[in-house]
Amino acid sequence: MDINEKKLDNLIALALEEDLPAGDITTEAIVPASLEASAVFLGKEEGVLAGLEIAIRVLATVDKEVKLTEARQDGYQFSPGDILAQISGRANSILKAERTALNFLQRLSGIATLTRAFVEEVRGTRAAILDTRKTTPGWRELEKYAVRIGGGKNHRLSLSDMMLIKDNHIRIAGGITPALEKAKEKASPGVKIEIEATNLQEVKEALEGGADLIMLDNMELEMIKMAVELVSGRVPLEVSGKVNLDTVREIALTGVDFISVGALTHSFRSADISLEFI
Amino acid sequence: MDINEKKLDNLIALALEEDLPAGDITTEAIVPASLEASAVFLGKEEGVLAGLEIAIRVLATVDKEVKLTEARQDGYQFSPGDILAQISGRANSILKAERTALNFLQRLSGIATLTRAFVEEVRGTRAAILDTRKTTPGWRELEKYAVRIGGGKNHRLSLSDMMLIKDNHIRIAGGITPALEKAKEKASPGVKIEIEATNLQEVKEALEGGADLIMLDNMELEMIKMAVELVSGRVPLEVSGKVNLDTVREIALTGVDFISVGALTHSFRSADISLEFI
Amino acid sequence: MDINEKKLDNLIALALEEDLPAGDITTEAIVPASLEASAVFLGKEEGVLAGLEIAIRVLATVDKEVKLTEARQDGYQFSPGDILAQISGRANSILKAERTALNFLQRLSGIATLTRAFVEEVRGTRAAILDTRKTTPGWRELEKYAVRIGGGKNHRLSLSDMMLIKDNHIRIAGGITPALEKAKEKASPGVKIEIEATNLQEVKEALEGGADLIMLDNMELEMIKMAVELVSGRVPLEVSGKVNLDTVREIALTGVDFISVGALTHSFRSADISLEFI
Amino acid sequence: MDINEKKLDNLIALALEEDLPAGDITTEAIVPASLEASAVFLGKEEGVLAGLEIAIRVLATVDKEVKLTEARQDGYQFSPGDILAQISGRANSILKAERTALNFLQRLSGIATLTRAFVEEVRGTRAAILDTRKTTPGWRELEKYAVRIGGGKNHRLSLSDMMLIKDNHIRIAGGITPALEKAKEKASPGVKIEIEATNLQEVKEALEGGADLIMLDNMELEMIKMAVELVSGRVPLEVSGKVNLDTVREIALTGVDFISVGALTHSFRSADISLEFI
Amino acid sequence: MDINEKKLDNLIALALEEDLPAGDITTEAIVPASLEASAVFLGKEEGVLAGLEIAIRVLATVDKEVKLTEARQDGYQFSPGDILAQISGRANSILKAERTALNFLQRLSGIATLTRAFVEEVRGTRAAILDTRKTTPGWRELEKYAVRIGGGKNHRLSLSDMMLIKDNHIRIAGGITPALEKAKEKASPGVKIEIEATNLQEVKEALEGGADLIMLDNMELEMIKMAVELVSGRVPLEVSGKVNLDTVREIALTGVDFISVGALTHSFRSADISLEFI
Amino acid sequence: MDINEKKLDNLIALALEEDLPAGDITTEAIVPASLEASAVFLGKEEGVLAGLEIAIRVLATVDKEVKLTEARQDGYQFSPGDILAQISGRANSILKAERTALNFLQRLSGIATLTRAFVEEVRGTRAAILDTRKTTPGWRELEKYAVRIGGGKNHRLSLSDMMLIKDNHIRIAGGITPALEKAKEKASPGVKIEIEATNLQEVKEALEGGADLIMLDNMELEMIKMAVELVSGRVPLEVSGKVNLDTVREIALTGVDFISVGALTHSFRSADISLEFI
Repeated sequence: MDINEKKLDNLIALALEEDLPAGDITTEAIVPASLEASAVFLGKEEGVLAGLEIAIRVLATVDKEVKLTEARQDGYQFSPGDILAQISGRANSILKAERTALNFLQRLSGIATLTRAFVEEVRGTRAAILDTRKTTPGWRELEKYAVRIGGGKNHRLSLSDMMLIKDNHIRIAGGITPALEKAKEKASPGVKIEIEATNLQEVKEALEGGADLIMLDNMELEMIKMAVELVSGRVPLEVSGKVNLDTVREIALTGVDFISVGALTHSFRSADISLEFI
Repeated sequence: MDINEKKLDNLIALALEEDLPAGDITTEAIVPASLEASAVFLGKEEGVLAGLEIAIRVLATVDKEVKLTEARQDGYQFSPGDILAQISGRANSILKAERTALNFLQRLSGIATLTRAFVEEVRGTRAAILDTRKTTPGWRELEKYAVRIGGGKNHRLSLSDMMLIKDNHIRIAGGITPALEKAKEKASPGVKIEIEATNLQEVKEALEGGADLIMLDNMELEMIKMAVELVSGRVPLEVSGKVNLDTVREIALTGVDFISVGALTHSFRSADISLEFI
Repeated sequence: MDINEKKLDNLIALALEEDLPAGDITTEAIVPASLEASAVFLGKEEGVLAGLEIAIRVLATVDKEVKLTEARQDGYQFSPGDILAQISGRANSILKAERTALNFLQRLSGIATLTRAFVEEVRGTRAAILDTRKTTPGWRELEKYAVRIGGGKNHRLSLSDMMLIKDNHIRIAGGITPALEKAKEKASPGVKIEIEATNLQEVKEALEGGADLIMLDNMELEMIKMAVELVSGRVPLEVSGKVNLDTVREIALTGVDFISVGALTHSFRSADISLEFI
Repeated sequence: MDINEKKLDNLIALALEEDLPAGDITTEAIVPASLEASAVFLGKEEGVLAGLEIAIRVLATVDKEVKLTEARQDGYQFSPGDILAQISGRANSILKAERTALNFLQRLSGIATLTRAFVEEVRGTRAAILDTRKTTPGWRELEKYAVRIGGGKNHRLSLSDMMLIKDNHIRIAGGITPALEKAKEKASPGVKIEIEATNLQEVKEALEGGADLIMLDNMELEMIKMAVELVSGRVPLEVSGKVNLDTVREIALTGVDFISVGALTHSFRSADISLEFI
Repeated sequence: MDINEKKLDNLIALALEEDLPAGDITTEAIVPASLEASAVFLGKEEGVLAGLEIAIRVLATVDKEVKLTEARQDGYQFSPGDILAQISGRANSILKAERTALNFLQRLSGIATLTRAFVEEVRGTRAAILDTRKTTPGWRELEKYAVRIGGGKNHRLSLSDMMLIKDNHIRIAGGITPALEKAKEKASPGVKIEIEATNLQEVKEALEGGADLIMLDNMELEMIKMAVELVSGRVPLEVSGKVNLDTVREIALTGVDFISVGALTHSFRSADISLEFI
Repeated sequence: MDINEKKLDNLIALALEEDLPAGDITTEAIVPASLEASAVFLGKEEGVLAGLEIAIRVLATVDKEVKLTEARQDGYQFSPGDILAQISGRANSILKAERTALNFLQRLSGIATLTRAFVEEVRGTRAAILDTRKTTPGWRELEKYAVRIGGGKNHRLSLSDMMLIKDNHIRIAGGITPALEKAKEKASPGVKIEIEATNLQEVKEALEGGADLIMLDNMELEMIKMAVELVSGRVPLEVSGKVNLDTVREIALTGVDFISVGALTHSFRSADISLEFI
């Protein structure tokens, strides 16, 4: 999954600690410890599967004897009634882990499902869909993984791994040109520099200042088109702001390289997936 | 806030570690370390404020010199353009903490806003709106706090603090009566026992078996009404399933005590709040 | 064991770190690394075994190759000379882990032994023996486990999982009735409310105020009897204070439901169990 | 206090987490957040105070505004009714921290009280009372501190900081002489070597083998006397085994240097100290 | 200092734990707790100061009352006898923290001193001195800070923040061209791509393949010159391998942009700095 | 290896977190996940191997399927071209772990190599080479292990495990005699006491005061000889200061027992060892 296992295990431990600080008192009272069972993860609507390995890992954290007997791959487009995975093990353990496993799986599949909707909209254009840093605290790596599963690309991971010069930076520096100068002076050889532009003059200045990427911030469609023409491929262009499923295609058709969408991670709906004993 | 400060600080640390593993290289290159600034948290749509103290705590974690100069209380109903808080301190520090602070504030305000919408719908009835365990792993306590701010009540925190006997438990025990017997035998003196019922016969059995609460699971409106009559106040009743903003009022009008809503925490939209320098 | 394994492993790690911050310099100097040995846990007095799996886990933490070849179950009533478990593995590893393993086993068996003494005293009455929150910091879950092994029941785990309104709360609220009112207004649907009463008038008020349980605090035997009569089964009654092995039976004979005993966890004697090489 | 503050704070955090995983729901429902109060720690029997700073630290961890207004020093010999400390702050905070603070204070004072009883018994002899490694896992440093407060001396902290060659080591090495040879060959220049002896022949061999200390293990009084004569001050002697309050004085009168007592930390009774609002 | 304070504090805690697991038994036995003292950090040879704030932070971690009364800035070029900082506080605390504080200060100053020697050698050329990932595990951020203090620039921080395609990657990909193609296909928009070249043909291929930087790996001086000519400024060039204080200047004079030096962090000598009481 | 595995694993985790906070983006883009490979650790100069198990553990932490197929033992004297170990597993995993594994192995082998050079110099004398507390924060145990591998002995591990009375302690105590008195009064039975002496008068005083060891601090060769004569074997003597590879032999020939060398851990050169695919 290309996910840092140590951090993932910490988050799973945190989640289980929240839900099972002192055991599952209902299950322990009622379900015989020796009872074995099989269960399936079941799609209840249309969606894109993401996080199945994580859900299984939650189960295995509760009880390493719980076994996965078959499973779809993350990225699978499921429909109501689709079996996404089948597991077997102690009924006890499955009941304890169920809610936590679903809490991971439903959220990540919700993000992948929303991302794919955007990606489908821009199919055939040169634009890629990017995520943002508007992620749930503690979940950045997981949510960015779900975006990739949905077909999106990841923007920068953090404030440490690329320079993105925004309006406040520009104002403090005294303009785009001095902001880019300062950035280039300090940047390590491996760091790219992106800068926001809100009009064509700024795009021009950013281009001349040597930006590696330019972000067209909250521009109208017409202006985006003119920016694409002005830059004509010398650096990649990213559109940010006013992007939703209704607008994304016409933005993509302007010829920009990237469209970033905050809603992918800040306003998705959890996918409806359930766990059923069989 | 009645929130465990140690766990909160761990989550804030995790969030800052995600966003600032090696500093904010843009801000450090461009913004003079000595520059002071003031900024406001600004409402950009209608909503209910939740998590402001947490957002401020994020800022203070980055730089304990950042000061809050004025602030609304959590629970405040804001409109576009409302100033929710004003802060001042090193521009540097505010820029570094901005995204993480907003990531907390927007999510929690989104939950409070959605909760209040449900609470408004049931105004005048005896029903209280409850949350569920369908919370973001790592965020349970915070999300339940936001539900309270929105006017909802909290259902059980975890699998450890009350017994909730669900369909699978009942099936394994061999029926409602034996399930309740086993539960009562094992329960500590301080623990309440709730049980799911899917029809009137089961409601009756639950009542006779000595349940402390009964959950009416996925029942039609008519059946809920009959259950309310049958129980006639001897134990509280909770409705679960098929609840949304369109249906919640008529459910409440049946006379049930509690209506639980998973969407409060699994499918909310982040509130639109921004941080603006002034 | 129904014990949170992650917390247990943290405590074991802490214990081993205390005892082996930089290895066992005596054993490393003298005992050949390759030497294999067998050893037994041996009872040296009468007692109730508790914590054997934990002691074994300590050994396995030091060296996962140490094997358990046979073992009694927790709850076993042992006598001097009884073999409680047999292990085999590197002599080295057994010597390093010995003291820490015994430190767990002797304490938990001491608690179970004392608990069983109380439980035996009340045999044939309706009273159950309860523990309290007077546990060793860091050991609450383990000590409550040992109480269960000894035949006791667990009172609330923490200040978060049931309401227990004590004298100071009552005084601040202005009496039992307003205290119960405030408690019921704030309580989540799953929370039970217990209240202290020190005389019959207070018992009556607690009953009318809708308490779920009533704690008879430091009452004389006669008054306890009258309280039992007054309440006549409508809510469970708990006796607290002045309880020891000499008094517990006559308290139980009054017909109360629960008797809580702080000494179970705050003043037990470690059981005499040793580890012997064979 | 000469106690590692970081480890202490970890243990306090663990203890508060156990008792307040999700707040004190009773106090939060009933006690107004603004209510200020004063309270005292009160002796309820005879004892030696130990751990007062730790109890205060627990209170300050819950709420740093809780202030200590006066306090006795650790080591103070208290009687029933003695005020040990007075604090003031939010009633709320004091109630939340009360049980955890007492759980530390009562245990450590119990150990100091028991230690002083042994120390009083040997007054006027050359013998010092030593503790052992039979400490509560997680509490070694605290319990050894309480022993010092009671007037005892600390034996080795862990398996890493001195060599103590016991029966099993001797057997594996093939005798006292080869065991001492191996130990001296491996020991760092700063490490002392102690060895167990069970009869006079072994004492002699230990002396000739160059042991820095000799432990007389489970010897009868007469044999201890002869060992003291035999060694005549060339190395210090420690008695271990069969030590209790009835036997300790006659052991001390033999002229040994150290008497180690496992019960100091494995079988003490918590001191009766309470917290009372005033 | 632009250093992650949380990670720094963790490392300081780890260091103090190593050196003071159970206090400074010598100082506690001899130095009165109330004794106040002043002390200076003193240069004992020529060097570049780095890590002074960290050394002071170590002192403050041991005792927050230890005060800095005057201090040089990191980057200061010191000579034997130079006072680098003056502190005052409890003699006790200063003695406990001394060795750990010096262990940080001497190492970081050693790195800064060595870096400055390289930087001086290339003065007047266009080449910047870069560090590598050959850092002490646990110290990467600190060592890279010391390199900056010495006048060097930082290469990539980790395997996550830029692509550097090395010989093994090229071989596996089947050549420079396919390696660059795969890299560009996968790279996030913010990531730069550097590739190793060992001869002029590879440099040409890297240039045509669209590398953002080219590393000239272990090339002879003549070949480096030809590479500089061939590339003529289209992308920056980095030299790696065979770099030491004797060779660095002639390498720099070829016109390359960056010279990376592993020895800066893997084979420096600690600077001779002491702490003296006054 | 006699190394605390838990602490080692923490340091390895810290190191991997530094180098792979979000994966190895180059390798993930280019190297097929299924590609298997073999590789060797190769000596590139003369040296003493130390830390090979740790390097292998780094690889196994990244991917537990990476297997060691053959390996030299720590302590092996290697030459350029010597194969030190051979491993096989996923090429991917080996590339990710390579730098971190080498960062451990090269440093520890560097220390062992330098230590052996000192040990060789004193061959045939009674002197042992000791390390100091001048270790890299976070690395004390590892570096002391490497010293042992090189043939050195370890001085005290920390300020907690033996008393070493230095010049500042003596000054504060008012002389060697009162310093030793205070130390002996407070020392636990298992603790040895060493004291610094700078001239013969102080050596005499230390001897009479009952020191267990005496450190001859920065003495000239002639004075060391006279100290050896004066003490004539009654307590061991340690030389500290002015020790390097040119002076160590003549110091050893004076007949002292220990020579401590700070440079072993503060100014070593990393050994040149590489990882090569085959």
